[in-house]
Amino acid sequence: MLNIILPDGSQRELADGASGYDLAASISEGLARNALAVTVNGEVRDLHRPLPNNAQVSILTWNDPNGKATYWHSSAHLMAEALEALYPGVKLAIGPAIENGFYYDVDLGEGRSISSEDFPEIEKKMLELAKNKSQYIRKEVSKADAIAYFTEKQDPYKLELLENLEDGNITFYTQGGFTDLCRGPHIPDTGTIKAAKLMNVAGAYWRGDEKNKQLTRLYGITFPKAKDLAEYLERLEEAKRRDHRKLGKELKLFAFSEKVGAGLPLWLPKGTALRERLEQFLRRAQVKAGYSPVVTPHIGAKELYVTSGHYEKYGADSFQPIKTPNPGEEFFLKPMNCPHHCEIYKTEPRSYRDLPVRLAEFGTVYRYEQSGELHGLTRVRGFTQDDAHIFCRPDQVKEEFMKVIDIVLYVLKALDFPDFTAQISLRDPDNKTKYIGSDENWEKAESAIQEAALEKGLNTVTEYGEAAFYGPKLDFMVRDAIGRRWQLGTIQVDYNLPERFDLEYTAADNSKQRPVMIHRAPFGSLERFVAVLIEHCGGNFPLWLTPEQFIVLPISDKFIDYAEQVKAQLEQRDLRGTVDARDERIGRKIRDAEMGKIPYLLVVGEKEAQDNIISVRKHGEGDLGSMPLEAFVKSVQSQMAEVM
Amino acid sequence: MLNIILPDGSQRELADGASGYDLAASISEGLARNALAVTVNGEVRDLHRPLPNNAQVSILTWNDPNGKATYWHSSAHLMAEALEALYPGVKLAIGPAIENGFYYDVDLGEGRSISSEDFPEIEKKMLELAKNKSQYIRKEVSKADAIAYFTEKQDPYKLELLENLEDGNITFYTQGGFTDLCRGPHIPDTGTIKAAKLMNVAGAYWRGDEKNKQLTRLYGITFPKAKDLAEYLERLEEAKRRDHRKLGKELKLFAFSEKVGAGLPLWLPKGTALRERLEQFLRRAQVKAGYSPVVTPHIGAKELYVTSGHYEKYGADSFQPIKTPNPGEEFFLKPMNCPHHCEIYKTEPRSYRDLPVRLAEFGTVYRYEQSGELHGLTRVRGFTQDDAHIFCRPDQVKEEFMKVIDIVLYVLKALDFPDFTAQISLRDPDNKTKYIGSDENWEKAESAIQEAALEKGLNTVTEYGEAAFYGPKLDFMVRDAIGRRWQLGTIQVDYNLPERFDLEYTAADNSKQRPVMIHRAPFGSLERFVAVLIEHCGGNFPLWLTPEQFIVLPISDKFIDYAEQVKAQLEQRDLRGTVDARDERIGRKIRDAEMGKIPYLLVVGEKEAQDNIISVRKHGEGDLGSMPLEAFVKSVQSQMAEVM
Repeated sequence: MLNIILPDGSQRELADGASGYDLAASISEGLARNALAVTVNGEVRDLHRPLPNNAQVSILTWNDPNGKATYWHSSAHLMAEALEALYPGVKLAIGPAIENGFYYDVDLGEGRSISSEDFPEIEKKMLELAKNKSQYIRKEVSKADAIAYFTEKQDPYKLELLENLEDGNITFYTQGGFTDLCRGPHIPDTGTIKAAKLMNVAGAYWRGDEKNKQLTRLYGITFPKAKDLAEYLERLEEAKRRDHRKLGKELKLFAFSEKVGAGLPLWLPKGTALRERLEQFLRRAQVKAGYSPVVTPHIGAKELYVTSGHYEKYGADSFQPIKTPNPGEEFFLKPMNCPHHCEIYKTEPRSYRDLPVRLAEFGTVYRYEQSGELHGLTRVRGFTQDDAHIFCRPDQVKEEFMKVIDIVLYVLKALDFPDFTAQISLRDPDNKTKYIGSDENWEKAESAIQEAALEKGLNTVTEYGEAAFYGPKLDFMVRDAIGRRWQLGTIQVDYNLPERFDLEYTAADNSKQRPVMIHRAPFGSLERFVAVLIEHCGGNFPLWLTPEQFIVLPISDKFIDYAEQVKAQLEQRDLRGTVDARDERIGRKIRDAEMGKIPYLLVVGEKEAQDNIISVRKHGEGDLGSMPLEAFVKSVQSQMAEVM
Repeated sequence: MLNIILPDGSQRELADGASGYDLAASISEGLARNALAVTVNGEVRDLHRPLPNNAQVSILTWNDPNGKATYWHSSAHLMAEALEALYPGVKLAIGPAIENGFYYDVDLGEGRSISSEDFPEIEKKMLELAKNKSQYIRKEVSKADAIAYFTEKQDPYKLELLENLEDGNITFYTQGGFTDLCRGPHIPDTGTIKAAKLMNVAGAYWRGDEKNKQLTRLYGITFPKAKDLAEYLERLEEAKRRDHRKLGKELKLFAFSEKVGAGLPLWLPKGTALRERLEQFLRRAQVKAGYSPVVTPHIGAKELYVTSGHYEKYGADSFQPIKTPNPGEEFFLKPMNCPHHCEIYKTEPRSYRDLPVRLAEFGTVYRYEQSGELHGLTRVRGFTQDDAHIFCRPDQVKEEFMKVIDIVLYVLKALDFPDFTAQISLRDPDNKTKYIGSDENWEKAESAIQEAALEKGLNTVTEYGEAAFYGPKLDFMVRDAIGRRWQLGTIQVDYNLPERFDLEYTAADNSKQRPVMIHRAPFGSLERFVAVLIEHCGGNFPLWLTPEQFIVLPISDKFIDYAEQVKAQLEQRDLRGTVDARDERIGRKIRDAEMGKIPYLLVVGEKEAQDNIISVRKHGEGDLGSMPLEAFVKSVQSQMAEVM
């Protein structure tokens, strides 16, 4: 008999030679039907391979990231089969699963090419082949046999791949009429592939080396249900509509200029208003929580980075040093604010009673990115971190973590991100020597973080071995409105910089002690956060944050005076907005204001002016009817009360 | 007869051969007594030289800068005479007047030196010689005679100076037993020199060249009244007490770190609070005045500065370019914000109806200064300008100037600088070709500035030829509490950058037109302004601005709770302060709080806690007695009402 340990720790006995499929079937018929693969002691394997004794096994379905990856890798084989049918003689290079779907790099042969017009034919062929429910059959082959096979098939790419494989470790997978050199694993058969879509075609050099031949990379995605594909495509469309680069331009939030340089955003008046309000919102919360704002320069002398250890990491791929008329003098654009804050910590002697010292700065830092990597506000060369460094005693780490978590939760609530998990990154328990700092302090900090997260009721995931060499950390992984995950708030313990900068405090017993340093940034950076926020809310910012809360639309010139009065009265009540005094029809004014995603459109004409009221339209909801100003103000203020 | 034109335009007839002294005497006996020299057609001359016919003449007294300079230059001769008496064989190099007093570079000869201990003897000798009322006698000498004289005197420095002088242009001045090679002019006699003080001794290379011999530079100052000297020395002492570098350290406002780099201030929490409050104060005023805050990066690509024209001015004495992995790509630390703002202007088409566009940024810029030139916050390598650029139509220049003047006046009032003049810098009317921009626009802008200043009732000084090549400007010259003058607010018209960046707007007739650009910075830079402000108010900042408005001082541990209650209640009323909960005697707490220049010290003990009151001490004024919190809040708020 075979003993199998399930993920919940329970054990199950199966007949010798039983497979993952048998295990699934022994649990439920539904699970057996949906099973795509298994993990055996952490390694993903084919569902139908016999299980070893005493193994920890879990069944992978579509809902598991490893299940999806296996499914998409198998779909790449299916696409390759379709391509061989449609493009006889096509040579195949590699075809992995990716985050969303898969690709295959292929050599179509001289004079042949594939464009998006050819996609439907390939998709049709894939689904036609899938209907055969061909099994993915695994076969161990000798290196000689493998070479013989691909020599006959005249595939130079597989032959080159084979060169680096060891005899005894080589497997083929065959489904239908298609055989590939492949480590696997794969799903049981093609029958579960019910929807297929080719997404893109691009050039890709063999092995990523531009000296090699350029191949054709075909991107595709597949789903077990046609509905899933439709939803996926709709999500992609929605993401395009919400693209912060598009909305940033339409809403005049930010711009780029070639002369200023790629990746260096210019914040336009409306974007600046948004950004300043975000800063102000966080600044207030931080001052309330005992932070001290500081301001430091955007450059630092070489010596600062020699001390911090960053100097040796500056390479040819970084912004190069700034030389001066003084030979040997060098400055660097600051890539982070911590070294400057360490120097501020050192400006006076600190006692245990002074700690924690919490230095906060909206500090703009510069890091070189290749121009191909730049992307709107999410990948830039200059960005402003909502940075702070907490210098505390080891016994204060837990309380400080809890306080930072409070701030992050406050931010996520105010900006309407209800869906997040906290990822705790700890030491690799099997390799503790690669970390700086004493074992005792690590243990203290790690349990402090875990306890803090627990006490704050966070939904956590713990990753062992993911800690930085200088300390454990906690990241907030946030899901946006269209299901994408972003890492936002980070809280990072650091034992390294206090050591390098020789930071000290005088303990109660008069001894000199090292403070612990905690880096934290609830937004991460203002640039990236604004990008995520734009896409999360599709440009419809929370009322308290949006640059223009209302616009008054006089239906003709005659009512501009009244419109200005309305605006002035609302401004006195701390609401922000403008008057559209253009000589345009009211329909056009409403359309433009809707395009500008202004939350409240206040239409005023004869009746409104006479009765001293306004007609209110809410963006995305339509007409709310007419009301006195005071009623409108109350309604708006109550919506913002929680944040402000 | 001689016809003389006086500064007020009136004319006066004098006998042929009449001197400046005769002119003064013809006006009043007092003027003749106080006259030190004259200007003849703009050139300063000895009082007793005969005047030419039809000359424009003004009489210079101690109250005139040129009068002081002549007086001090004559005092340098007097000091030289004293040195010859006390240090026989001393060789004399040069001895000019400077901003405050004069110096003489002398060669004392092998083995002799002067220290501050020798100053009283020299001062005594000067005053002894001055009592002789020796006249300063001018004599034209031939080059040969001059050389013969200094050869006999064995003075290599005067002989070297003579090499470069033309025969016929050489004059000697003699007072008492001392004769110097000198162009003059001088005061009539030594009798007006009533107080003398040697200030400093330093090394100085002959002709400023370190390959030459090092001479001894003796700095001195003299006054017509002993009281003036005493006042001057007291002002110097006061300036030392107010030195912003000293107070900045004592009040923990800012610090410098060698590792971060010289000239790169670190703003500590209290300094940051001050700085942020200043920013916020101006930001609010600017937003009210229709400015749009923007944010731009601290670097710009080479192309930006090629366009702006700054690229060709970057030299070996600047921060050098920042290279990147991309060959040929270069960025520069931005030395000003205007090019970035021009690029923002260009992000959308502008119509005449959109103007003025007013882009404001607290923009940090970087300029390399030699380390010897750095001085606290007044000369730094990185500073934040309270910058804004107004893009307007030519017909809007006057109104925009008036609006900017309003902001500057608001700033000067809020920060208690009542004493200032406005300096208007216009074109050189005799050389209009060296300026960019049309004659018509210059005339329009120049009269717009003059009219704006007039209508705002400013006390103005007009300087012809002081305009930049790209436009006229207006500077505010502010006198601080100890009489020093600082240039603070600048408003500068610019025709150059709109041209270089090809900025446009669409006029009412649909033609494309160039906007005018106005640069303006009421503070100048936050760093320099804070330095001036610290010295102006001696660290006793205006109540609305000061980082800590109050400190609650419990007389013992028992009253910490009540102290915290007081603090919390004041914070709710938007006042800022702390509790001194240290285990120290109340006397010490009061002393420390006074040192920290905290405006209000609120002492609380048994009586206060019982009656729910506070005992108030005002910094620099002492005990104000006890009062309920509410009375204190009202008094404080009424003091701040004007600004906030």
